[in-house]
Amino acid sequence: MWDRFLRACRREPVDVTPVWFMRQAGRYMAEYRAIRAKHTLLEICRQPELATEVTLQPVRALGVDAAILFADILLPLEPMGAPFEFAAGEGPVIHEPVRDRAGVDKLRLFEPEEGLPHVLEAIRLLRRELDGKTPLIGFAGAPFTLASYLIEGGKSRHFALTKRMLYSEPDLWHALAGKLSEVVRTYLRAQVRAGAQAVQLFDSWVGELSPADYREFVLPHVRHILADLQTTGVPVIHFGTGTGALLELQREAGGTVIGIDWRTPLSQARTRLPGVALQGNLDPLLLMAPRDYLAKRVDEVLDSAGPEPGHIFNLGHGILPEMSPDACKFVVDQVHARRRG
Amino acid sequence: MWDRFLRACRREPVDVTPVWFMRQAGRYMAEYRAIRAKHTLLEICRQPELATEVTLQPVRALGVDAAILFADILLPLEPMGAPFEFAAGEGPVIHEPVRDRAGVDKLRLFEPEEGLPHVLEAIRLLRRELDGKTPLIGFAGAPFTLASYLIEGGKSRHFALTKRMLYSEPDLWHALAGKLSEVVRTYLRAQVRAGAQAVQLFDSWVGELSPADYREFVLPHVRHILADLQTTGVPVIHFGTGTGALLELQREAGGTVIGIDWRTPLSQARTRLPGVALQGNLDPLLLMAPRDYLAKRVDEVLDSAGPEPGHIFNLGHGILPEMSPDACKFVVDQVHARRRG
Repeated sequence: MWDRFLRACRREPVDVTPVWFMRQAGRYMAEYRAIRAKHTLLEICRQPELATEVTLQPVRALGVDAAILFADILLPLEPMGAPFEFAAGEGPVIHEPVRDRAGVDKLRLFEPEEGLPHVLEAIRLLRRELDGKTPLIGFAGAPFTLASYLIEGGKSRHFALTKRMLYSEPDLWHALAGKLSEVVRTYLRAQVRAGAQAVQLFDSWVGELSPADYREFVLPHVRHILADLQTTGVPVIHFGTGTGALLELQREAGGTVIGIDWRTPLSQARTRLPGVALQGNLDPLLLMAPRDYLAKRVDEVLDSAGPEPGHIFNLGHGILPEMSPDACKFVVDQVHARRRG
Repeated sequence: MWDRFLRACRREPVDVTPVWFMRQAGRYMAEYRAIRAKHTLLEICRQPELATEVTLQPVRALGVDAAILFADILLPLEPMGAPFEFAAGEGPVIHEPVRDRAGVDKLRLFEPEEGLPHVLEAIRLLRRELDGKTPLIGFAGAPFTLASYLIEGGKSRHFALTKRMLYSEPDLWHALAGKLSEVVRTYLRAQVRAGAQAVQLFDSWVGELSPADYREFVLPHVRHILADLQTTGVPVIHFGTGTGALLELQREAGGTVIGIDWRTPLSQARTRLPGVALQGNLDPLLLMAPRDYLAKRVDEVLDSAGPEPGHIFNLGHGILPEMSPDACKFVVDQVHARRRG
């Protein structure tokens, strides 16, 4: 069943639970490392043939039920006027962090076909290569997560500068998040036009916020994106980590599917989020467990999701470089071995 | 009311809500930095007069309702046979990480009066200095949090090696956590004997685990500590961060007071945790907000805790070095300005 991923997003019956992995294209695969030996991460993102090849690697090797475009959530920052690089071992470095009104004013909205043509070209190439056999997921970072990189200048532990902006300069925050949400909206729309059959919004760090802060500072901006995306008809996966206290608000913000990390049991999420599909939620570190224990824990995730339609198996967060493709393949086979209904 | 902190722990009526701050003795205070300019962190911990002085600084400057012994959760590792140091800007570095049976076997149980006499001496000194005017809290790290430092060799982002031990070598894990829980139990008991009027168990990183993992790998070890501590009659605060999905299990493990971070509203925690007192839960980054907004958010925490007895005002996690003592003092005054009942 080529479309079991899309069917599960729409909570339609499927033969077996669909499965894919966040960061399924990446350094844990020898095929990927071979390409990275010759190209930087940003070169791969900017050359549609390379992005296509890297996107296809896990589809071939693992037999996952969805391909996810190889790209980086920070790509839109460059055409907005906020260039960055990946410093060795340190993650992204934003050259000029955005911390005041002048910085926010300088950020530009852009036409995705002009600002990020290579991403859209990769989507078109991928649709041809995948040839209707595996659905293609597009994605973007959500406003809070993107803003946190822009404000902090890179990764952060306490999100101190970001929260200071929320609490001290809420108007400035809303101006920044408003620009980002409009950029993300048009970018995801363009991905759908180019052929993405589903999209995932990564609000990876939003679990740092209290529910009250989420409601005030994040929800309106995410809703701006998702309300529009849902009119395209493609499923939208709304993902975060550490979001156990935010799930109802995330659902209110939108999404066909809500991503759940390993901290919230799927059975609990089913009760709290009626009417949406769920994606998740194996702790990625279980990929390093012995096979019999891993099998047991995969089964527990499937049990917790229950027989109700609308579950996409995934990790609670991305694959790490030290993990093994064999363990990933084992999980795919384990999930597919269990017939539904 | 000198004992409003202790009364709130026992859910007895108080005149105003007691307040103290995690990491209230620390680099954000000029008085502390003056001492740190001449002594390392471990020197301060090892010299009872210095530890006493540093512990008293925020009591004098802020008017908090409890003093918390200045120490580090890692102190018991050294007498266990696992020495460490604080590398500049990098946090703790364990010289020989514990990753196999031989490493666990080498760890020793120890008599606190022999292994950490300076800590107990500091407690005795502090009780004299505080002279019944402010209660003194002792503390220790919990087995999961301590084990994660031992296994990873320092701070960790994904707790990859720790989780690998849980999932791949559960017997080894339980041997390690068992030793740690016995060390922590006797260490906290000794602190109580020396004069600590309450103790806090810091399981700072346990929110990384799913509820199923917490139940299997952590709960029995925490219960070993807390069941014994509760027979001493002093209040025990059981603290973690990111624990929204674990609160009921933490309560099952024990504690007179459960620490709540800013991600879980206190009103929700009240419903989920009947019969225990709560401590929390202002996002520490709010200390960097303008005063009127900070005041509003402090009030919201008090409102969320409600009129029921049994709330100790605190942050959801520790004060950061870049925060201002004035903001902390402002919060203390704001909390104390509101009479209860």
